[in-house]
Amino acid sequence: MGTSGRSGAAVTTAPAPTSRDLPHPVREEIRLEGVLHALSDPMRLRIVRELAAGHAELSCSQFDLPVTKSTTTHHFRVLRESGVIRQIYRGTAKMNGLRRDDLEELFPGLLDCLLTAAARQAARQAARHGDG
Amino acid sequence: MGTSGRSGAAVTTAPAPTSRDLPHPVREEIRLEGVLHALSDPMRLRIVRELAAGHAELSCSQFDLPVTKSTTTHHFRVLRESGVIRQIYRGTAKMNGLRRDDLEELFPGLLDCLLTAAARQAARQAARHGDG
Repeated sequence: MGTSGRSGAAVTTAPAPTSRDLPHPVREEIRLEGVLHALSDPMRLRIVRELAAGHAELSCSQFDLPVTKSTTTHHFRVLRESGVIRQIYRGTAKMNGLRRDDLEELFPGLLDCLLTAAARQAARQAARHGDG
Repeated sequence: MGTSGRSGAAVTTAPAPTSRDLPHPVREEIRLEGVLHALSDPMRLRIVRELAAGHAELSCSQFDLPVTKSTTTHHFRVLRESGVIRQIYRGTAKMNGLRRDDLEELFPGLLDCLLTAAARQAARQAARHGDG
């Protein structure tokens, strides 16, 4: 860390590594229906696949989605409010991470099942479009 | 049974055991996002759980859902149009069956994963409400 994140603001308390300002459901509040709804959109499914592909945390701006910024923000909010991702401010960046542990505890195996199904569909689609 | 279903209609061709009038996506058209959307509603999830609980086919009226008839019809339509269930007229009854084979071929293991997650959530809810 060091001095990174210094923005010259008068109030200089370091940004706490918590989900400041952004409401998250606690684990017990996460509903299967909400998780499935969150993943029922192609863009949100894509975001989750990218988050699952090894990266611990990604800022919203690191996703190159073919939608407007406000739509992107909306998708991240749906993912957060359903309990699929955790969004944390780090300085001015909103960082996103999958809530793997919470989902795994509530619904063992479900996330991997969904990611496998999504990968399968993507592969089928790629083959159909002549990439395979 | 016997003469049940006789409504005195002039045209008496037997109802074909096909999905007459009701549009269904063919297997290749079924999208993961659509399946997840279909299951993202508590009533629809409940319908699917009941269909999965051993019964091959059930008519819409066999489901005792705490919603209006038109809402019930809507839910069944969403399930059909997403490819989760097949609806077939048998006489005047609309019969519903899970498209297990199609879903299994497209997304192996997914349906069972989702049913397991739904059962887990239902059990947790029952325990919380003092049934356990």
